[in-house]
Amino acid sequence: MVDIATRVYNHTWKIDPIVRSVLDTDFYKLLMAQTIFRRMRDVQVTFGIRNRTKEVRLAEMIDEGELREQLDHMRSLRLTPGESTWLRGNTFYGKRQMFSPEFMDWLEEFRFPEYLLEKRDGEYVLTFHGPWIETTMWEIPALSILNELRSRSVLKDMGKFELQVLYARAMARVWEKITSLRELPDLSISDFGTRRRHGFLWQDWCVQAMSEGLGSHFLGTSNCLIAMRREVEAAGTNAHELPMVYAALANDDEELLKAPYKVLEHWQQDYEGNLRVILPDTYGTTHFLEHAPEWVANWTGIRIDSKDPFVGGEEAIAWWKSRGQNPKEKLAIFSDGLDVDTIRAIHKKFHGRMRIGYGWGTLLTNDFRGFAPEGKLDPISIVCKVISADDRPTVKLSDNPTKAMGPRAEIERYQRVFEVGKQVAKPVIV
Amino acid sequence: MVDIATRVYNHTWKIDPIVRSVLDTDFYKLLMAQTIFRRMRDVQVTFGIRNRTKEVRLAEMIDEGELREQLDHMRSLRLTPGESTWLRGNTFYGKRQMFSPEFMDWLEEFRFPEYLLEKRDGEYVLTFHGPWIETTMWEIPALSILNELRSRSVLKDMGKFELQVLYARAMARVWEKITSLRELPDLSISDFGTRRRHGFLWQDWCVQAMSEGLGSHFLGTSNCLIAMRREVEAAGTNAHELPMVYAALANDDEELLKAPYKVLEHWQQDYEGNLRVILPDTYGTTHFLEHAPEWVANWTGIRIDSKDPFVGGEEAIAWWKSRGQNPKEKLAIFSDGLDVDTIRAIHKKFHGRMRIGYGWGTLLTNDFRGFAPEGKLDPISIVCKVISADDRPTVKLSDNPTKAMGPRAEIERYQRVFEVGKQVAKPVIV
Repeated sequence: MVDIATRVYNHTWKIDPIVRSVLDTDFYKLLMAQTIFRRMRDVQVTFGIRNRTKEVRLAEMIDEGELREQLDHMRSLRLTPGESTWLRGNTFYGKRQMFSPEFMDWLEEFRFPEYLLEKRDGEYVLTFHGPWIETTMWEIPALSILNELRSRSVLKDMGKFELQVLYARAMARVWEKITSLRELPDLSISDFGTRRRHGFLWQDWCVQAMSEGLGSHFLGTSNCLIAMRREVEAAGTNAHELPMVYAALANDDEELLKAPYKVLEHWQQDYEGNLRVILPDTYGTTHFLEHAPEWVANWTGIRIDSKDPFVGGEEAIAWWKSRGQNPKEKLAIFSDGLDVDTIRAIHKKFHGRMRIGYGWGTLLTNDFRGFAPEGKLDPISIVCKVISADDRPTVKLSDNPTKAMGPRAEIERYQRVFEVGKQVAKPVIV
Repeated sequence: MVDIATRVYNHTWKIDPIVRSVLDTDFYKLLMAQTIFRRMRDVQVTFGIRNRTKEVRLAEMIDEGELREQLDHMRSLRLTPGESTWLRGNTFYGKRQMFSPEFMDWLEEFRFPEYLLEKRDGEYVLTFHGPWIETTMWEIPALSILNELRSRSVLKDMGKFELQVLYARAMARVWEKITSLRELPDLSISDFGTRRRHGFLWQDWCVQAMSEGLGSHFLGTSNCLIAMRREVEAAGTNAHELPMVYAALANDDEELLKAPYKVLEHWQQDYEGNLRVILPDTYGTTHFLEHAPEWVANWTGIRIDSKDPFVGGEEAIAWWKSRGQNPKEKLAIFSDGLDVDTIRAIHKKFHGRMRIGYGWGTLLTNDFRGFAPEGKLDPISIVCKVISADDRPTVKLSDNPTKAMGPRAEIERYQRVFEVGKQVAKPVIV
């Protein structure tokens, strides 16, 4: 029988919004937002989209009108009472009242700020300029929207049956991956795939699949909305934008050198336990660790992101030992371009030597590789990064020069200050 | 939104019937029924179920009460006016009015006759005794019911999510097979999978998949109900039960020897064109072809069933040539235990040398191999065969002695009459 009400409800939508909730974002955005809210809310920060997959020209696939509709729809959203209740009342990382009443009051009133959109050379130039506390909120939904609009541009030409087979194949693939992961002892893995997901419904399915297939070995999802609806843990810590803005605001080389540690100082005033995870690679992991104040070694763990995971893991172990810490009590979170093979290899190398967590992103929530002709549903490497803070350009060096960003002169200054020599480029998969 | 009406409709079913229509059967049953109706309707014929997969004990998996409910439900069915209209008005094998008004009048009044069910040694002994024209109708639904009840006995312990993944994997597998078949030039393939299907809904899906994926290279389905609903061709010709009953009714060895050809004589009075396909293996293909009257070589084609397909194909070509026929104008239908690898190999060997058709059964509609622990959803080799006609035992020799059936003394007599020597046993896959 036809459920007329559902059909009528669906066909009265002017658009089919991709992001329907302020909470359809990564948990780390809220954690960082609170830290920003407390100290730096009025710093003027510009975020911009950068598509590192040059052969995919989004402006040729995605209609500008549709993109504007989706972005405009975002601006109509506000936190719902139920969502606010959940954030205020839920336990995150074992702690109640993670978010202060002041921050929650702000979040309830929050609206997404304006965006700037133009087309240039077959690419969209999409930027967000304004108070950091507001522009930071755009990162995840802007990426989700671009990625899903790209998926939709391919899906709209497929028949009902083709679509069914497409998702059957995708489900079979994800399930095969999960089955393979089940064999790993003491596995602890989270979904970090919001930004690059194939689509919202698909990420939601992937989270359920992980939950069903891995049980307590599935730690949770970075996506707040899905965490709330599916009653799983919300997961995530912090990102490069913190040291990047702190660094840009430094008035001289000495302040610049200290900026990444100042981030950690602020962070540990706000968060404890498993949220104290260092992200050391913004200006080179090796220098960061060597020059880190003693208290940094007391933190719970390290996130190994742009560095080769095997090199990065060994480096973390050696560093903890050099600081008199027991690596077996420390946590290493791997989160860069993971897929089952990498996870298995990392696990083989490091299991038993330290606590390990995995943040599995794109190849969990968007592994449609080979499912459409010419790889049209293959994931692309697209990011939304801080470009400037209070009109000063931001810089990222990372451990992989392919991921470096910023004006050339500034990059050179940062390389000098952080004593970063020649780096070996790695291809960026996703 | 919940479609309350659908849910209420579903939960008022006392049982969820597996077979809901007289037409949920193979097309060849109706063709044979018409031939029987015209000449032999009152011959008393017993059909019986035989499960050749000894390690699967159906009576231990399927509840007797449930089985009786399903069989009893069958007995409440009758042809609906819409179904009758379709059979009367549709074109089958290019011909209108395939079924005579007299036969259609009978079919409209038809009810499934009684069944006998007992348990013996962990197996069900399920037999149908009565006029041939009635008992013949039980073959396909009885098998579909047993196979689907077995599937259900496994499925009922699976969670909602597990089920979704199960069907996603099955869909991905079927689609992969179809994609592989697409590469074959001049492919012509039909679904013959009603009797051993995983379930009705699954067969229905497989037919749509074949239709979508192969276009005009998908000839149709043996299942009348699905052919009607999905508007594809109904496919099928005839089966071993015809020569088996004709042979059992022979009064001496001479009549016995002629019985298989008498079947063809009757058949060609009723059907023409692509329905004139010899099924030569009931008492050995080689003897059948050697002794066939000249007019048999004028028939359109041969079905190669229990014989090794490569040997059987060469034999058919050689035989046609020996009878002055051009094999390139002849049709060979392969239908035994097919899967993609076999189909590809057969195609490689015979494409261009004769017209080829494939009747793809169990490994199309029930390839759940490896999808449940201990192979509990793997297909089994179960048949429903004629046991006796007018109280005389029936015999089948086949080209594969594993498939032979009948009392030992009778088998020996048939072997003598049809000059069948030592045969090489092949394992029966499905």
